[in-house]
Amino acid sequence: MTLRLDTQHLAGFVCAEEYKAIAPQVECAHRALHEGTGLGNGFIGWVDLPANYDKEEFQRIKAAAAKIKSDTDVFIVIGIGGSYLGARAAIEFIKSPNYNALPKKTPDIYFTGNSISSSALAELLQLCEGKEVSINMISKSGTTTEPAIAFRVFRGLLEKKYGKEGAAKRIYCTTDRAKGTLKQLADKEGYETFVVPDDVGGRYSVLTAVGLLPIAVSGADIGRLMQGAAKAREELSCPDLEKNDCYRYAALRNILYRKGKEIEVLASYEPCYTLMCEWWKQLFGESEGKDGKGLFPASVIFSTDLHSMGQYIQQGRRSLFETVVLFDAVKQEICLESDAENVDGLNFLAGKSMAYINEKAFEGTVLAHTDGGVPNLVLHVRDFSEESLGYLIYFFEKACAISGYLLGVNPFDQPGVESYKKNMFALLGKPGYEEQKEALEARLHR
Amino acid sequence: MTLRLDTQHLAGFVCAEEYKAIAPQVECAHRALHEGTGLGNGFIGWVDLPANYDKEEFQRIKAAAAKIKSDTDVFIVIGIGGSYLGARAAIEFIKSPNYNALPKKTPDIYFTGNSISSSALAELLQLCEGKEVSINMISKSGTTTEPAIAFRVFRGLLEKKYGKEGAAKRIYCTTDRAKGTLKQLADKEGYETFVVPDDVGGRYSVLTAVGLLPIAVSGADIGRLMQGAAKAREELSCPDLEKNDCYRYAALRNILYRKGKEIEVLASYEPCYTLMCEWWKQLFGESEGKDGKGLFPASVIFSTDLHSMGQYIQQGRRSLFETVVLFDAVKQEICLESDAENVDGLNFLAGKSMAYINEKAFEGTVLAHTDGGVPNLVLHVRDFSEESLGYLIYFFEKACAISGYLLGVNPFDQPGVESYKKNMFALLGKPGYEEQKEALEARLHR
Repeated sequence: MTLRLDTQHLAGFVCAEEYKAIAPQVECAHRALHEGTGLGNGFIGWVDLPANYDKEEFQRIKAAAAKIKSDTDVFIVIGIGGSYLGARAAIEFIKSPNYNALPKKTPDIYFTGNSISSSALAELLQLCEGKEVSINMISKSGTTTEPAIAFRVFRGLLEKKYGKEGAAKRIYCTTDRAKGTLKQLADKEGYETFVVPDDVGGRYSVLTAVGLLPIAVSGADIGRLMQGAAKAREELSCPDLEKNDCYRYAALRNILYRKGKEIEVLASYEPCYTLMCEWWKQLFGESEGKDGKGLFPASVIFSTDLHSMGQYIQQGRRSLFETVVLFDAVKQEICLESDAENVDGLNFLAGKSMAYINEKAFEGTVLAHTDGGVPNLVLHVRDFSEESLGYLIYFFEKACAISGYLLGVNPFDQPGVESYKKNMFALLGKPGYEEQKEALEARLHR
Repeated sequence: MTLRLDTQHLAGFVCAEEYKAIAPQVECAHRALHEGTGLGNGFIGWVDLPANYDKEEFQRIKAAAAKIKSDTDVFIVIGIGGSYLGARAAIEFIKSPNYNALPKKTPDIYFTGNSISSSALAELLQLCEGKEVSINMISKSGTTTEPAIAFRVFRGLLEKKYGKEGAAKRIYCTTDRAKGTLKQLADKEGYETFVVPDDVGGRYSVLTAVGLLPIAVSGADIGRLMQGAAKAREELSCPDLEKNDCYRYAALRNILYRKGKEIEVLASYEPCYTLMCEWWKQLFGESEGKDGKGLFPASVIFSTDLHSMGQYIQQGRRSLFETVVLFDAVKQEICLESDAENVDGLNFLAGKSMAYINEKAFEGTVLAHTDGGVPNLVLHVRDFSEESLGYLIYFFEKACAISGYLLGVNPFDQPGVESYKKNMFALLGKPGYEEQKEALEARLHR
């Protein structure tokens, strides 16, 4: 099995009747999603995407990735939020968090346009010195401030370096199918374009061109990634709670939320899962954190964080539960050797693999934390392959949609993200925001 | 001023009477800390450390760093928790999160021994191939599982590469002054040793040899780091709440906690602050998360996470407050240029610096979030210098001690960290844990 939800460590926290009570609500959420009758039903294109994605564009993505691999040392991916986290998380998961440092035949990949830090941008310019550079600008509209600033800077760099025509062959835009300033610019300048579908929101877009081009440039097999997602789509479509681990996960988070848990801590024992946690935090935080509701998503990497957040989880406020993502296989194995003098006292582990020791660390931790009053859900994932990742991504996307409907929110909008933007535009003096400017400045300087 | 706490965005959340009410408790906590009468008073060596640290050892640290810079390509730092986070956070803050990738005259620095992932360890071995390597093993006892495993592997690598004698000149141990297996081994093999003081706990240890050696190897000026901390020690010793920003921060977190806030989100607008957030999470989470109490520490980097966790912060459950760390200066500046065609519509920003735009992003966000019901504390820090970092570290350490006393816990112990370790040792079959093994295994396989 690619993925399996283990609920044995919920004993004492959730009883059988609670499953029965929530099952009809899950069926109802399932129907709303699959019949397209739920809130935000204009943004459920991701549901069938693994089956009906654009095969012609998929080949163009592969061809573009092949060209980039052949003529590029540093590949700059410009995007924020859903146009950033998914691709980076997938590359760190499949390849490595040390992807850029490790010897390889594919380009270095850097992500930018996701903050307004000049220091970070200036460093990246330094890293491009003397290198062959290509760009992927990812923005539905082309006007989101953070990526637009970075794109202006890097487009300037490429035009200086390669001339306008040469640069045009190194700029790839992932944007709206037909409209928007980025699409217009790309058509005018002759940049190759890929599509951000209208019916797939940013945080659900990693399996569109948004994620696929950067992932393909890293050398990962995006065909197998889509196959994994397609398998999940088939296997996770049964409305029966008992037969659908995805829906059980969605139901359990709501059961725990309704009995007072406020924080869900996603835990992994592999450092290469760090950015996947960040992707998950956007997916769930942005989908459910609204109308004064929602579990607060947090994450830890064990055993690292057993020596930082571990104390809190063991004995702090009892307002949290953990979801642990475990992998049945490892990428590379190391066995501990015996030491003649045994100064560190580790000889009782001689001949044991680190995977085995890591598994015992998990087992020891899950028992300690449940003893401490922290419910634990455990997701067993087969391995670190592209298939497993595609499956896992779809699992979380669908669980998030069902969970949002159970919570009673629109899991596909993000109205709160506009608030800071409007204020920022006004304070920056953007044309059209003159009136707000004065009022906001008065509040800042009183 | 090196650091300033701005509380203007608490208007409507905290009233003047609340300061008055908590002031005597703060004075009481101050006395307990300074007179050494509070809980955990065996671990307050960090209070006067910036003034009375071991100057002879300090020179030895600088000399060791100079030698390492001269003969090492890759410097491997082995440690977990407080023996890991502080040094890494300081290097990313002062130098860069891209420190290893950027051109420089100092060694690459990698941190290991902080997880049990064989994939992560195997990758690091690959990164050492063909390179000159030195090691800093950091462990009070030498028997903590994670670093002990990594040390066994890397010590083997060095002895194979340089012979036993050659390796001995490349292994630096930061450990107990006199006892423990690592100290014994170091003395026997002739490794240079530095001291983890008895009266400074792991999470308070970044300004001891634990943090200072790796920080010095990165080329940062550890003398100025200590000067910054010494300045903070002097300036933050007044028991009067109105005159002490450190105590005001401690008091405000408790005021907000007592009125129902459960999560403190630490926010920065600079990616190089990411690991400092992790250091802060250990400091506060491990100090206060006990006896069923404590604010849950979380962190975000803006504007990046305004496009992931921003929705939750703006409109989710109203159980959180934010502490924003802002910098008055930037490391490198970039100004936005005008574009003849203005396709991205950014020309209203032409001639503006990114620092200015980032500042307006903060101002827009703080107003949006307070409008959304999220109290905001703002810490203004002068710059990214070693002095400012030393000051900031001491500020948070002292605030954490005072805050813990206000909460009514021992801010210097971490009894919960033992729970998973005991279980893990038993499950791994460590001699002496035989009895627990069977019982634990039965619970796992029922």
